[in-house]
Amino acid sequence: MSWRGRDVVSIRDFTRRDLEELFDKTRQMEAHARGRLDLLKGKILAVAFFEPSTRTRLSFETAMKRLGGDVIGFSSAEGTSVEKGETLADTIRMLDSYADAIVIRHRAEGAAKFAAEVAEAPVINAGDGAFNHPTQAMLDLYTIWRIKGRVDGLRVGIMGDLKYARTVNSLLEGLALFDVDVYLISPEFLRPRQETLDYIESRGLKYKLLAKVEEILPDLDVLYVVRIQKERFLDPLEYERVKGSYKVTAHMLKGAKEDLIVLHPLPRVDELDPSVDKTRHAAYFKQAAYGVPLRMALLSLILS
Amino acid sequence: MSWRGRDVVSIRDFTRRDLEELFDKTRQMEAHARGRLDLLKGKILAVAFFEPSTRTRLSFETAMKRLGGDVIGFSSAEGTSVEKGETLADTIRMLDSYADAIVIRHRAEGAAKFAAEVAEAPVINAGDGAFNHPTQAMLDLYTIWRIKGRVDGLRVGIMGDLKYARTVNSLLEGLALFDVDVYLISPEFLRPRQETLDYIESRGLKYKLLAKVEEILPDLDVLYVVRIQKERFLDPLEYERVKGSYKVTAHMLKGAKEDLIVLHPLPRVDELDPSVDKTRHAAYFKQAAYGVPLRMALLSLILS
Amino acid sequence: MSWRGRDVVSIRDFTRRDLEELFDKTRQMEAHARGRLDLLKGKILAVAFFEPSTRTRLSFETAMKRLGGDVIGFSSAEGTSVEKGETLADTIRMLDSYADAIVIRHRAEGAAKFAAEVAEAPVINAGDGAFNHPTQAMLDLYTIWRIKGRVDGLRVGIMGDLKYARTVNSLLEGLALFDVDVYLISPEFLRPRQETLDYIESRGLKYKLLAKVEEILPDLDVLYVVRIQKERFLDPLEYERVKGSYKVTAHMLKGAKEDLIVLHPLPRVDELDPSVDKTRHAAYFKQAAYGVPLRMALLSLILS
Repeated sequence: MSWRGRDVVSIRDFTRRDLEELFDKTRQMEAHARGRLDLLKGKILAVAFFEPSTRTRLSFETAMKRLGGDVIGFSSAEGTSVEKGETLADTIRMLDSYADAIVIRHRAEGAAKFAAEVAEAPVINAGDGAFNHPTQAMLDLYTIWRIKGRVDGLRVGIMGDLKYARTVNSLLEGLALFDVDVYLISPEFLRPRQETLDYIESRGLKYKLLAKVEEILPDLDVLYVVRIQKERFLDPLEYERVKGSYKVTAHMLKGAKEDLIVLHPLPRVDELDPSVDKTRHAAYFKQAAYGVPLRMALLSLILS
Repeated sequence: MSWRGRDVVSIRDFTRRDLEELFDKTRQMEAHARGRLDLLKGKILAVAFFEPSTRTRLSFETAMKRLGGDVIGFSSAEGTSVEKGETLADTIRMLDSYADAIVIRHRAEGAAKFAAEVAEAPVINAGDGAFNHPTQAMLDLYTIWRIKGRVDGLRVGIMGDLKYARTVNSLLEGLALFDVDVYLISPEFLRPRQETLDYIESRGLKYKLLAKVEEILPDLDVLYVVRIQKERFLDPLEYERVKGSYKVTAHMLKGAKEDLIVLHPLPRVDELDPSVDKTRHAAYFKQAAYGVPLRMALLSLILS
Repeated sequence: MSWRGRDVVSIRDFTRRDLEELFDKTRQMEAHARGRLDLLKGKILAVAFFEPSTRTRLSFETAMKRLGGDVIGFSSAEGTSVEKGETLADTIRMLDSYADAIVIRHRAEGAAKFAAEVAEAPVINAGDGAFNHPTQAMLDLYTIWRIKGRVDGLRVGIMGDLKYARTVNSLLEGLALFDVDVYLISPEFLRPRQETLDYIESRGLKYKLLAKVEEILPDLDVLYVVRIQKERFLDPLEYERVKGSYKVTAHMLKGAKEDLIVLHPLPRVDELDPSVDKTRHAAYFKQAAYGVPLRMALLSLILS
């Protein structure tokens, strides 16, 4: 199945070959991420961010503009026709009649799938509900592939709130296309939901559930960090007690492999200490910067 | 009078010939509504939406970009210099010194006319006060002309809140340029204001005031629906009693002509049931889609 | 030191020669302020307005687009990753990896300097804290130079809140590069802060502190007006008593030189009466309009 005209709703819809094609294209786009191609001249991308997200939105907009295309849309639901009571279907139909592709971000689970059914133009999910953020997972996998030269054979730790962070779910589903060992580090009540574990197991992804990173840190090639929100805890004292265990600092990384890379979808708050920024392990700024060439590759594969 | 450099404040300022020229141009622009022309390369359109409107704003932005031009502006008054106490005149003067044309949307009656007096650049009214939304009326008339092949000789029903819906007032003034029979269907207290009725009468437009659509439905060629807001009713019980009469459903349309078209300026809430979407009568999504070529035609006539 | 790749954090970092180069370039750009150059084709400017400002933001966006470049960003902190707790450094790093230059506006003193340290791309201060707004000062000085043919030898009055208006501080620092006589007209408690006075004195700028404009008005070549906010006064009655003294009207200007020009950074509220607009003295709309060619010159010097 070719990328042309395709919706990007869930990373489950993509094969390893699809991702490898995307990675090769992204690698080429890196040379143009500071310049301008005219590949998508005359095309218009609609960004429909019913929920705000600076990084994701601006990287899509930058990507589209670097490709010579243009952008319309909105960066929050505020002041849009949605507030006047318009249904999602009607809003999407409108954008479908104006634009050549639609990027949607929405609080509701399944919003992107629904939009893809309504629209004739390709729809790209920029995060919906609690479980899907496929282009972030593509970016995460690309960053690993790009820095490590491969994904297969790596030991990948994922640490923090693994239940409600939508990037984690998509990343796990993407990792299931590769031959890796995954270590899931979280408080017990923030482990990935069972449906996700069943899915990756059915795909043959090997994983272990852990409560602490220390035991596995020396073996890891990749440590992917996400935030744990205080609000997830019923008991604030419990939060205070465990939060230190899920915070990455330069000091904590002393026992890691020399070439361990630390990733984070950003923005970060205090789960990833600035002391890590200057260590050789910090790869999250690179990861963020790859957002533009990756989305340039994605848009050009789908639209040109 | 040529379109070049002209303000679009009220549809009263335009002749039948003006509209026909616009329709012909729009028909041509349909071929480019998914592509890109370089007609307005180097031109900048300022969108000054003191009151939000997703559909109108995005169709103007899309049109300008499809013509090779660019857009600056704001999508709500929030955070603009208006909140710092700046007068409308000063804000318009600023935009006038930056842009080649200004599209304005404003709560206050007469805001567009005032802006047109202040600015040297052409000013386009994207809706002000309760009575003027000329480009929407142009779009409504174009949709009829495009689908029916003519406007003259048709029977046009307009149903809902005919007093406070600004699209209705402009549409009636536009219809007065053609030879049509108009049926105005609304609760008595939401009939068009007398000034509007006097105007269309002076222009020779034939109309009838009705309380129910049933009696006339079998004869209609066009049914234009607008919302009735609950807040207009002093007595909520009265609203509950009548609202069903002004709601269009697939069932209700059973008695209509085969080629009746239903129009709506959108967004809709519950006055236009989704059951209508799949009937042959639904023309409102087409109407919305024509918004881009119509505004491309408008901008190119005024600016190129 | 060349302009190429340079940060614009404070006007103190620029020499008279720098400004003269900018003025010459701006003069050339005036011919293109209604057209389009392709000087910055393929370049992207990030506008990071943590604090809203319609005039400054739209003039930068217009300038970038007139030069063939494109723009990404946000017009207020609302809905951005900052609200999710992201640090300024991380937000700037993100923009740095997407865009070719960053324009920042921020409530906090020193935000632009800090951003310039974090980012590799050039950072332009569009106003931060209470004391720096260098591109506004460049625009003010250009307007004087352009209309008067020179800056040297002029008598410049600056009136209003001279302590908290960030344009005033930057303008004074800019004027210190020229040979002018400055008259600082304000209530005693709103005189420029001592640090600013010390700086301009050390640079040899001659100034006098005055409480009323009447005594000096007949001698002035330029009168620069800024607003006094009611909130600055501890006693509202005191505000009511003095506000008339710092308000410019056509009547008040009767005693002025024929070729006195009145400037204002805009937006204005009531410190500059609309009666002045039609006098020969009003130069503030011109000043605002020069914002586009000046920022075109600035961006092209830095980026091309």
